[in-house]
Parts: sequence; C-alpha cells; structure tokens
Amino acid sequence: MPASASLAIAQRSLGDPDIRYPLWPPLLKGCPRTSSDAMSYPVEVEYDHTRVPADFLSGTGAGFGFGTGAGLDRWSALLPPLLAPTLGEGGTPLIDIGGGVFIKDESRNPTWSHKDRLNRCTVSAALGVDAPGIVVASSGNHGASAAAYAARAGLRCVVLGSAELPPAVASFLTAYGAVVLPVPVEHRWPLTERIVDHFGFFPVSNLTPFHTGSSFGPEGYKTVAYEIAAEVGVPGAVFVPTGYGELLFGIGKGFAELRQLGLTDRVPPLYSCEPAAGGPLATAVRRKVPGAQVPVGATDAYGIDCPVNSYRGVLALERSGGRPLLVDDAQLRAAQEELAAQGLWSELSAAAGLAGLRSAAPEVEGPVVCVTTSSGFQDIGVGARTLAPVDPSWESVLDRLTAAGIGPA
Amino acid sequence: MPASASLAIAQRSLGDPDIRYPLWPPLLKGCPRTSSDAMSYPVEVEYDHTRVPADFLSGTGAGFGFGTGAGLDRWSALLPPLLAPTLGEGGTPLIDIGGGVFIKDESRNPTWSHKDRLNRCTVSAALGVDAPGIVVASSGNHGASAAAYAARAGLRCVVLGSAELPPAVASFLTAYGAVVLPVPVEHRWPLTERIVDHFGFFPVSNLTPFHTGSSFGPEGYKTVAYEIAAEVGVPGAVFVPTGYGELLFGIGKGFAELRQLGLTDRVPPLYSCEPAAGGPLATAVRRKVPGAQVPVGATDAYGIDCPVNSYRGVLALERSGGRPLLVDDAQLRAAQEELAAQGLWSELSAAAGLAGLRSAAPEVEGPVVCVTTSSGFQDIGVGARTLAPVDPSWESVLDRLTAAGIGPA
Repeated sequence: MPASASLAIAQRSLGDPDIRYPLWPPLLKGCPRTSSDAMSYPVEVEYDHTRVPADFLSGTGAGFGFGTGAGLDRWSALLPPLLAPTLGEGGTPLIDIGGGVFIKDESRNPTWSHKDRLNRCTVSAALGVDAPGIVVASSGNHGASAAAYAARAGLRCVVLGSAELPPAVASFLTAYGAVVLPVPVEHRWPLTERIVDHFGFFPVSNLTPFHTGSSFGPEGYKTVAYEIAAEVGVPGAVFVPTGYGELLFGIGKGFAELRQLGLTDRVPPLYSCEPAAGGPLATAVRRKVPGAQVPVGATDAYGIDCPVNSYRGVLALERSGGRPLLVDDAQLRAAQEELAAQGLWSELSAAAGLAGLRSAAPEVEGPVVCVTTSSGFQDIGVGARTLAPVDPSWESVLDRLTAAGIGPA
Repeated sequence: MPASASLAIAQRSLGDPDIRYPLWPPLLKGCPRTSSDAMSYPVEVEYDHTRVPADFLSGTGAGFGFGTGAGLDRWSALLPPLLAPTLGEGGTPLIDIGGGVFIKDESRNPTWSHKDRLNRCTVSAALGVDAPGIVVASSGNHGASAAAYAARAGLRCVVLGSAELPPAVASFLTAYGAVVLPVPVEHRWPLTERIVDHFGFFPVSNLTPFHTGSSFGPEGYKTVAYEIAAEVGVPGAVFVPTGYGELLFGIGKGFAELRQLGLTDRVPPLYSCEPAAGGPLATAVRRKVPGAQVPVGATDAYGIDCPVNSYRGVLALERSGGRPLLVDDAQLRAAQEELAAQGLWSELSAAAGLAGLRSAAPEVEGPVVCVTTSSGFQDIGVGARTLAPVDPSWESVLDRLTAAGIGPA
C-alpha cells in the first residue's frame, strides 16, 4: 500500500478533542491553543475511519512482504503518510513464555528497539516538510533509531547526546553517520532549537515543559496493538515499559481504533510500568492531574527514567481502564533474569513490562502481553565487563561445573 | 505444524551420498565411513520429498504466526524434528538498498544473528537424545545463540570461550545463564570431549580436524533460501559471509530442494565471501581439494576467520555454479559503511556478503541478495570507545556542524 493510502486527515488536540489543525505541517510543540506554561498538551493524528477496509485486521498481509513494500506498510491506512523508506520495522514475534504470558519482542526491529516504529513516522514528517535534516536529543535507542531512518532517507542527522553513554551505546549512536555531539543535558534543548532555526532541521525530540514530542511518531506504535490483535486477538492486559508514555499511548490508541471500527469488541487494560525511582505518570494519576514533575533517583533503567510525563500516558490509562505501576531495580533485574532464562536478553528498561506483571499480579482474564522494548546490548552495563580466564585443567573445570550444579550423567 | 510433521528420514554422507545412517542419533563427527585423518566429511539430513505439500513455498504462512506455533515451523516439513521451543527465529526482512540489491537482515533473529536458525535445530537434536545439557566452543554469536536455545528448552549449557572477548560480546555470551569458561583455544576441543563424556552433554560444536559440525544444524539455514524464494523468487545470485561454510551450504541446499520439488526452475549461484586473511574454502577450490588448512592473518572479521573449511562449502559452490571470493578488512569496512548509510548497522563479518558483491562485481541477471549475518553490537570494537564531551556553546557547535558539511537553511 503506497504512502498515499494513508487515511490521515488532520491533527487533533489531546487537550481539547474539538480542536483540529491541518495534517501538515506536523506541530512541533503540541497543541498551542490548550497548552500553557503549567501544562503542555500533545496532538494526535485523526483518520477517516469510514474508508478503512473491512479486512484491515484479518488480511494475511499478502502483498506486504518486506522486500515488496513492507513493514508498517501493512497498516498504512491508519498511519501518517509513510514517506520515509522502510527498514522492515514491525512484525515482531510474540513469544509464549508459559502461564498465559506472551512477550512482544521489540528487540527484533531494525535498530533493535520499538523506537523504529516511531521513527519511520517522525522521519516521514521531516520529509513531508522538505527538511534537509533532523535533530534529536537522545542518549540511546531513540537517537540511534532516528539516525538510522535519517540515513536511509538521505537526510542529515544531528544527535545531541550525553557524554556519559554506556560504551556499547556510544558505538550504536555513532554507527549511522550522524553528527553526535555529547553535551551537558541542560544544553540539549536550547541547542535543538538553535539547530532547528539555523539549519531548518526537523526536531524529533520534545520541545515543551511537559512531554509532547512528535505528533506523527506515536502513531507508529499503534501497530504493536494491530499486530497483537491480528495474532492472538485482544489480550487480557498489556504491560508496557513507560518513559514519556508514547508507546503506552500508541498501543492504547491502536486497540481503541480497532474497537471503534468494530473489528474487535473491547480494549485491554494497559499497565504503565515506570521505574520507582521516578514515576511521573504514577504521580500524576495519584494527584489526579494531567502532568507531574518528579525528582528521579538512582536507577539503571536509563531508557525510561523521565522527570515528567506526557498527558498521553494519563489518557491511555483512563481510556483503557488500566493503572500505573512502579518497579524498582531489583524487580527489573528479576524480570530481566526471567526473560534470559527463556532465551530472551533484554535491556533492563525493556524488562519493565514483565516486572510490572510479576510485582502487581493483577487478576487478568485471558493471555497477557508484556512488551520488551529493546535488546540486552542496549543495557547500561554492556561493554563494561570482561571475563577472567579460568584454569583449563580438567580438575579445575570439573570443580567449576560441579559448583554450578552440573552433575555427572 | 508440529515437530512430528518433519519429513526427515535419514542422515546421508556428503562423502558418499549412497551411505545412509538412521536419523537418530545425530552423528557428532560427520560421516565415520568416509572420513579419515586427512579429510572429514559431514553428513546431512535426507527427507521424504514425495510427501512435501504442493503449496510448501506458496503458502502464506497462515497458521504459523509466531504466537501460535512459529518461526522456522512454517518450513518444518523439510527440517529435522523441531523439538526445541521456538524463540521466533527466521522470517527476517529483505531490505531493498537499490541497484537491484537486497539485504537479508539476519540481525533480526532472537539473538540477533543467523545462528538462531541453526541452534533451533542443534538443541532439538540434544533434546531428541535426552541430553541433560549442551556444550559449545565459541566466543561469539554461536555460543550465545546456543545458550539462549538451551535456556529456553530447560537444558544446561557450558560455553568454552576465549578470554579475549570483545566487551559487549562478553556480556552477550553470559546473558543466558550458561556456564562460560574462558580457556586458551587449544583446550577448547579436548574439554568439549571430556564434558560430553563425563556429563552426557550434547556437543553443538565441531569435533573433527576439518569442520563437520552438527548434522542437524545447517538444515536450519535452508529456511533463508525458502524465505527469499517465497518473497522475491529465485534471485540472480546470493552473497554469503563464510566461515566454516554451514550457512552457505544450507542456503544452497534450500534452493536445490525447491528446484528438485519443481517449485522453482533454477538454483542461484552462491558466492562465498571469506576474509582475505584466511580463506580456506577459496584455497580448497583453487587446489581442487575437498579441504584446506590455511594460516589466518590479522583481520577484525573475527566471526568468520576460520583456519579450515568444511567440505560443505566446496559442495555448495560446485552445485550452485558459484565461486569463492576473498575480501580484505578495508573492503569489509567499506561495505559496513555502505550498510550503515542505508540504516543497517552490521558486524564487520556480517558485511562480507556485500563486500564480496562490491569487490567482485560479477555479471548477474536479476536481483542480488547479500546476507548480513548479525548486528553491529556484535562487532569486535563495540564497547571499546567512549565519546568526548564537546563545548556546548553555539559557536562551537556551529563550527562542528559546518565542518561536517551541514549548511544553513
């Protein structure tokens, strides 16, 4: 399905759903009419639901093989125009780990994280406004993914990162030919604005006090919901690693659209899984406010340790009947180990969904899906350890194997 | 399709195709009747071709969604019995990078390399003989993949690795709960044999002077050919990063089977792409001998720098009408950069297929497929670099961006 098959018609305010803006240009700072210094409201993309094909969900995907026009394209009717070339993002497997729990393994994307679904859309937005490049403030998966899609589309990319990157992530971030500038965190956003102004680059990072981010990007995450529904139907619940809440929102919106279209009969409750060291979304929900700012304590879950939430997260929980969960690093590590024991090595942040399920143990009917957002290679400690050689004598090896609980045949 | 749907009926010698062995137990040291101290011949798996469904290739894969019984299972008729639980291996995308060149991106597997297709089969072999665990001699992708499938299947795993692992790979290899013992290389194979004898563990590494490896494992690589044929038909040629030649052999066998079954009309020429620092297969072909041993000089392509070939590689080139290519590290780096500029970050070894295509520039009719075997995270230098902070003043940033060739809007 070509990019022109998108049924996107407008941008709509999440602060007031009666407020609409044209689809182009993508708004860079959320909804200007409802936002204030005290709160920032994002916009979303609205579609012409009357024209969605009846077999939207049940189609086998024939004709959408990766080599023949690909990836998210299967769902292009309900995505912004996919102007950026595909890297074969999406279509990730659901892995059954027993006990009615499925892992949606997002490490199987082109840059090994869920961010690729978002950045196919953000770079499409940049191409749609003829920007010569993009600028992104990120020290991890988002920055690398944005750089990859920019390279693929022939756009320049500037990444404003941190100088304290995990070593493997430093290699990752610089792999795609972007100009990577490690600067102190307080300089990142002012420099983003300067680069946008001076070079006409398109920003694919947030520019508002509370997170609004990209208007097109989170639409890409809806495809997680479509894929789950097409494969196993509507699950009993979905547990989602949550930073700014864009993934959470996208998954919730995807399920909501399917129900609105009459293709499914309900929306699963979503559980946001934030690091206990911060947890702005949980705080906002507890305070019954649209946004909260919190101090962020020590955590190794560097991919999701955000000081502010997005209003998107509040909406996603409200609309799905879900609730916020907090997980500490010990719970994250236990979940990471449980995944590894199933043959799935995930980043610590990426294990937050399973950690949330195991710590909250809510009563759920039907299968549960936990999203793992990225691979173990993207974790904070990777590249920091080396292995000490062992004495290769049989006696020494035998001792070690015995100590590890391995017994004779 | 359940594991029992496998049409595997026997093991057959590659040294003499008239010599057959029962399917079980999988032979551990190739074909005992044709092998000698001077040459080791592998065995392959033979199938009952009369019972292959007519829609083997054209089926849409309906019913084979990952969550519902999965991955390689779509092709289980022509695979060894898949007794090991899936991690959703296979089904990797073909990425069109222009000029009639497609990248088969094997970094999209469960442990981010092609080895997962092999290890679903090797661990199935271990389960089929009721082994309590597996032992593997590897310092990289093969060891981590084997550990992941062992964990998933509930088997113990011992990895005999090197103490000089790249730092990110050290984290990878130890992630899945295997007992990892870094020992000098000359101790690896004797210790493998001792562990097999003492603990009844199943070896998933080679145990012969010339490589014979696993009898079941390379069958898993046939699915690369099936997927390519199902998606874009038989390509004009396939370029394959080549170490011991198991991937090369599997891809060739897959295409050969499709032709034998009348599902396609030809087999594409395969090009083996070895590091110029070694190149045992190229040497064997040049000398017109079944196996060669070569000194391996300096190369960063540590994933494929093998001192001996397998006879499988010789057969794959002969049968497909292909030929061996050698690529040096500069050519590998150029290919790695070309891939990164398309948004694909690969291990240096994994770029050998594209490096081979670019260096040999053979005349090929129709689309060309280059296999990239693994992600950039698995490369030798990952984790070894850090980024120096830059002066965050606008003047300094402007200088850097200008120096990088970025001009004002």
